[in-house]
Amino acid sequence: MSSLKNDLLLRALRQEEVERPPVWMMRQAGRYLPDYIKLREKYDFFTRVQTPELATAITLQPVDQVGVDAAIIFSDILVIPQAMGMEVLMEEGKGPSLPKVIRNQKDIEALSTDNAEEKLKYVLDALSLTKKELNGRVPLIGFAGAPWTLLCYMVEGKGSKTWDKAKQFAYTEPAMAHLLLQKTTDITIAYLKAQAAAGADTVQVFDSWAGSLSPADFKTFAQPYLLQIADALKDIVPVILFPKGTWHALNDLSRSSAAGLGLDWCVDPAVAREMTGNRITLQGNFDPAKLLAPIPEIRRSVKEMIDGFGKRRYIANLGHGITPNVPVDHARAFVDAVKEYQP
Amino acid sequence: MSSLKNDLLLRALRQEEVERPPVWMMRQAGRYLPDYIKLREKYDFFTRVQTPELATAITLQPVDQVGVDAAIIFSDILVIPQAMGMEVLMEEGKGPSLPKVIRNQKDIEALSTDNAEEKLKYVLDALSLTKKELNGRVPLIGFAGAPWTLLCYMVEGKGSKTWDKAKQFAYTEPAMAHLLLQKTTDITIAYLKAQAAAGADTVQVFDSWAGSLSPADFKTFAQPYLLQIADALKDIVPVILFPKGTWHALNDLSRSSAAGLGLDWCVDPAVAREMTGNRITLQGNFDPAKLLAPIPEIRRSVKEMIDGFGKRRYIANLGHGITPNVPVDHARAFVDAVKEYQP
Repeated sequence: MSSLKNDLLLRALRQEEVERPPVWMMRQAGRYLPDYIKLREKYDFFTRVQTPELATAITLQPVDQVGVDAAIIFSDILVIPQAMGMEVLMEEGKGPSLPKVIRNQKDIEALSTDNAEEKLKYVLDALSLTKKELNGRVPLIGFAGAPWTLLCYMVEGKGSKTWDKAKQFAYTEPAMAHLLLQKTTDITIAYLKAQAAAGADTVQVFDSWAGSLSPADFKTFAQPYLLQIADALKDIVPVILFPKGTWHALNDLSRSSAAGLGLDWCVDPAVAREMTGNRITLQGNFDPAKLLAPIPEIRRSVKEMIDGFGKRRYIANLGHGITPNVPVDHARAFVDAVKEYQP
Repeated sequence: MSSLKNDLLLRALRQEEVERPPVWMMRQAGRYLPDYIKLREKYDFFTRVQTPELATAITLQPVDQVGVDAAIIFSDILVIPQAMGMEVLMEEGKGPSLPKVIRNQKDIEALSTDNAEEKLKYVLDALSLTKKELNGRVPLIGFAGAPWTLLCYMVEGKGSKTWDKAKQFAYTEPAMAHLLLQKTTDITIAYLKAQAAAGADTVQVFDSWAGSLSPADFKTFAQPYLLQIADALKDIVPVILFPKGTWHALNDLSRSSAAGLGLDWCVDPAVAREMTGNRITLQGNFDPAKLLAPIPEIRRSVKEMIDGFGKRRYIANLGHGITPNVPVDHARAFVDAVKEYQP
C-alpha cells in the first residue's frame, strides 16, 4: 500500500503490530537545532514559512540529524487566520501578535473562508517538495490549529496565560463564538484535505489551549469542532487530535473518528490507556523539561513511558513542543531510547 | 467550641451538615477592589505585607465589601524564602523576582530554617490584629506556599510558563532538590503552627505549580512534602491543600490528613467527588474567567457547580485567584449566588 521505507507511524495509527513504536517530537524542526538557527538569522519567520524551499529544508533537518520516524511540515497554526484576512506578526522569541482582533459579528462576517488552497498554496507546495525530497524515507505529517486555539489568538491578539479575553468573548457571546469556530472549522477542513492531496500522510490538529477550558466548556467550545474535523477527514487521511490538557475528554475522544490522540505529560501512560481502552492510538507524552535531564535519566524515563503505554497503538513523542534550550544530543538520546526499546 | 458568628467554613471542613456551602475567593483581597488599589498607590508591596495594620485593612476589605464567609490573611508565599535568607523583589504588575537563585548544595546549606516565628512576626501580628478586628464575624485563613512551588521560584528566580530550570534542577540533582524541599517543609510547618497560635482558624497550602509535574514526578517532588505538612498540622488546625492541576492525585490526597482539597476548574465537580468519595471536603472550582461573563451566566454556572459538588463537604471558591479585571459587582454576584443556592 505504501512506498515508504519506514511506515511505522502509519502502522501505529492503523493499530497494526509494530517491531517498536515510531517516534517524532513536536517542534522537532526548531530552535534547538543549530542549522535552524542559521536559517533564522537569514530569513524572517514568515519568509521561512512561505518559501517552500526553506520550509522543506527546515522540515528535513530533524529527519537527517536526529533520526525521527516522521517529518512534520514546518509551518504555523496562524496561517489560517492569515488566510481568512487577519494580519499576523511574529517577533522572534516573543510569539505572535494580531493587531486587529475579533470583537463583534461584523469582524467575524468579514473573515473569508474562500480559496484556502490558493491562499495557502505555499504550504501545499512545501508539502509536495518535502514529499519528493523525503523520497519515501519516513511519512510526512501535515497540521493545523484547532478552532478553539485559533479563536484564542484571534480574539486575544497574542499569547496569554489565562486567555481571559477569549474566554470572556465565548462566555458572553456564545453565538458569535460558535459562528467564528464554525468558520475556522470549515476552512480548516478544506485546508487539511488539500494537505493530504499535496502529500501529507497524516495530519495533526493542535488544540494547544483546550486545557484552559473547564470540561463543560471544552465540550461546548472545542470538542464539537475537533470531532467535525476528524469526521470530515476520516476517509482521506488519519487524523491525530492533540487537545492539550484535556485528560477529562480522553474517553469521549477515543470514540471519535480520529486515528490518534496526543497527550501531555500530566497524565500517567497506563491511566491514559485505561481511559481510552484499545480504541485509539495514543501519542506522547514525555515532559519536554526532562530532555534537560542527564541522558541516563532520559533513557530510564523513556523506557518507563513505553512500558506504561505498551508498544502497540502508540507513537512516542513529547507532551508539548521541544524547547530551544535542549542540547541536540539529548534530543537524539530521546529518539534513540525509543528505537532501542526492549520491554 | 467556637465564638464565631459564621463558622460555615469550619463546619464544612469538619464535614458537618450546613445550611449552605461557605464561600470565599482566592486573591479576594486584591487588585479588583478599588480600595486595595488606593492602598497600593501609597505603599509598596512588602510594606503592605509587613505592616500589620495595612495587611489587616486589606484582609478585611472583601469581608466588608463582598460578603465572603472567610478572611484570608494578606501576605505572600515568598515570605518563606525571604525568611530563609533570599532576596525577593516585587515589581507591581510584573510578579516576583529573586536575584540570587539556588544553584548548588552550598546555596541550600546557606538557607536558614531558624527563628521563623521571629522573622515572620509581622505575619503573626497581622493575624492577631485581624482576628481581633474580625471580632468573630468569619473565620480567618492562614497560608503558605508548598515546598515544590517555593522551589520553583527559588531555583528559577521568577515566574515561568514551563519551570524548565526548576525541573532541570530537580531531574538532574534530585538529592539536592529533596534537601531543599525538606528544609522548606520544616520551616513551613513551624510557620503554619505559629499562624494557628496567632489566630488562624485553618491554613491553606498553595502548590500553584504542582501541575507542571507529571504524575510520577508530583509523587516524587511534591506530594510527600504536602503530606508531611498535613500530618504535622492535623491535630492543631484544619489544613486545606491546593495542588493546582493535579487531578491525578485526588484519590491519594483525599486519604491524607488534610481536611480540605482545593481544585482548579479543569475537573468536573461530580468527577472530583467520585474520585475522592466522601473522604474529604472539596474546595473550588469556578473558572476565574467566568467572573467576566454576564451576571446571569455567573449565577447559572454557580448553581451547576454546587449541584455537581453537593452542598455538604464543600467550600465554594474559584479554581485560581480572582483576576484584576473582574468588576466588583461580578465578584459579589458570585458570592451571592452561593449564599442564595437552592438545590
